[in-house]
Amino acid sequence: MKKPVIGVMGPGSGATQRDIENAFDLGKLIAEKEWVLLTGGRSEGVMDAASKGAKSGGGLTIGIIPTADNTTTSEAVDIAIITSMGSARNNINVLSSDVVIACGMGTGTASEVALALKAAKHVILLTDNQGSKDFFKELAKNRVHLANSPAEAIEAATFILKDQRQDQLQT
Amino acid sequence: MKKPVIGVMGPGSGATQRDIENAFDLGKLIAEKEWVLLTGGRSEGVMDAASKGAKSGGGLTIGIIPTADNTTTSEAVDIAIITSMGSARNNINVLSSDVVIACGMGTGTASEVALALKAAKHVILLTDNQGSKDFFKELAKNRVHLANSPAEAIEAATFILKDQRQDQLQT
Amino acid sequence: MKKPVIGVMGPGSGATQRDIENAFDLGKLIAEKEWVLLTGGRSEGVMDAASKGAKSGGGLTIGIIPTADNTTTSEAVDIAIITSMGSARNNINVLSSDVVIACGMGTGTASEVALALKAAKHVILLTDNQGSKDFFKELAKNRVHLANSPAEAIEAATFILKDQRQDQLQT
Amino acid sequence: MKKPVIGVMGPGSGATQRDIENAFDLGKLIAEKEWVLLTGGRSEGVMDAASKGAKSGGGLTIGIIPTADNTTTSEAVDIAIITSMGSARNNINVLSSDVVIACGMGTGTASEVALALKAAKHVILLTDNQGSKDFFKELAKNRVHLANSPAEAIEAATFILKDQRQDQLQT
Repeated sequence: MKKPVIGVMGPGSGATQRDIENAFDLGKLIAEKEWVLLTGGRSEGVMDAASKGAKSGGGLTIGIIPTADNTTTSEAVDIAIITSMGSARNNINVLSSDVVIACGMGTGTASEVALALKAAKHVILLTDNQGSKDFFKELAKNRVHLANSPAEAIEAATFILKDQRQDQLQT
Repeated sequence: MKKPVIGVMGPGSGATQRDIENAFDLGKLIAEKEWVLLTGGRSEGVMDAASKGAKSGGGLTIGIIPTADNTTTSEAVDIAIITSMGSARNNINVLSSDVVIACGMGTGTASEVALALKAAKHVILLTDNQGSKDFFKELAKNRVHLANSPAEAIEAATFILKDQRQDQLQT
Repeated sequence: MKKPVIGVMGPGSGATQRDIENAFDLGKLIAEKEWVLLTGGRSEGVMDAASKGAKSGGGLTIGIIPTADNTTTSEAVDIAIITSMGSARNNINVLSSDVVIACGMGTGTASEVALALKAAKHVILLTDNQGSKDFFKELAKNRVHLANSPAEAIEAATFILKDQRQDQLQT
Repeated sequence: MKKPVIGVMGPGSGATQRDIENAFDLGKLIAEKEWVLLTGGRSEGVMDAASKGAKSGGGLTIGIIPTADNTTTSEAVDIAIITSMGSARNNINVLSSDVVIACGMGTGTASEVALALKAAKHVILLTDNQGSKDFFKELAKNRVHLANSPAEAIEAATFILKDQRQDQLQT
């Protein structure tokens, strides 16, 4: 059985200190669950912190890199997928994730949440940005989940993955 | 001097009757300005209606098609760019537009607004969806503009294009 | 009825003087046929020369740009589709063309010929590179056509387009 | 230090029996070297066989999937990157590989070899197709290497990787 892939999406240079701490904790918890972490892969903000957290927990880290080479890749990324596609790679980020966790908010992160919902994925929001919670909940009530901490986000992901496995067994 | 390209983004099957009427009027007004219309190109909803409006005004219509062939292309699209990239083509839609008008709201449209803002584009929102206005205004106050009618959206686009031309002359 | 879109693919900085002359003539002949010219859109080599030829004949020119903005776009491109996808845009070039003409040869051009054949497109080779003719003829004999001059290439394109229209009428 | 990623590219349904045997052996040898295997990820031909070979050797397998979900993914792929980009994903395949091995030949494989050379990658050809060897050798003599067996291909890859590491140490 394939290991679940959890996408952690969030701002690069625009990440807050709290986003970065949350991202590190998310990565660590994901590794402890023996899930695979997937991020946008750059050496900044949430992507970098989540990858470092996962490595601290002994996990495997995938980075979907927007540039044409590894110059922007976080050192905590094990497998770098070089897309040379800029923000169009955001769609790959979410399609390749079994569950998407948005950690923090910004224009890139908002595009990832919207693309994930468009692709019928479940999204967990871990952010103080109230406007994004209101807006995305309204767009897709049943597939947007709110979390107040990394632990709550992982609890929600566990629940969603269990549901997905059951759906697969029944089909 | 190249003709301005105006991107009109909006829902396909999820478009409301009002979105479709607005999209037709936007397309017609864009053609009357002798601007080029660019949409997601499918034969549904806002993409189809805006393209038909532009043709009724004698304009040129570009469609950025998500599928691998023309089976999903609106008959009102003059030039079909076949991407075979699904929703990743949303980034091409906005990068290729001098100004983006979001007509209606949905997950795909939200991704286009977010990707446009990420790429430092100006976006005009023509929608009743209050949550999207609040959220995107908060993300990028100076580049998100609200319109209550197609005419107001075209007025805003005219103003933004004039600003862009002046910036280009000064550099 | 939509105007046929003819893709002219060829080297940028690696184009020979003969490639550039052929590309200009191809563009001019395409415009005189009232077809639309589509190229990779950059301000170099075959892309630039074909676009200039088409403009000299009063035609419409589309450029599928690899970069994230217009800094690399030929001034002879009317409609610039900004992909920010590097060489992955080569697949869009060929999918969006009813017929592909390769003018000259290089690594990028070879990828476009191969991707066109993969997508079941007809390709006309206008090049002195004998190895490419032998190899691609072997890969897909019935869809690779050899031309010795721009006029011969346009003759072949005319024939292929006529066939395609007849196939469409019959289905 | 990151593990090297070796891309094995080759036909799907068009693969010969010999291509499939070679692909399995390549995958196994790559795993024994403790390198990561990257393929186009589909459950056919060279992609499938190489992935199975790598799993038989206890290796890690990455698949860059052309479709929008896992319905086409080989069961021997550990990490599926879902691109929904069709053949445009071929560029990601080669950009993400430290060395590219073409096992067999076809239109898709030819596009991958050409895109790899365009991106200045080294490519090892393991195929009976003489036309492809002649053509690609002429396009980029110093970066195209010929192998007569999986073992020879791995030897060549070892040599190229060693060179790359030395270049990195010097810069």
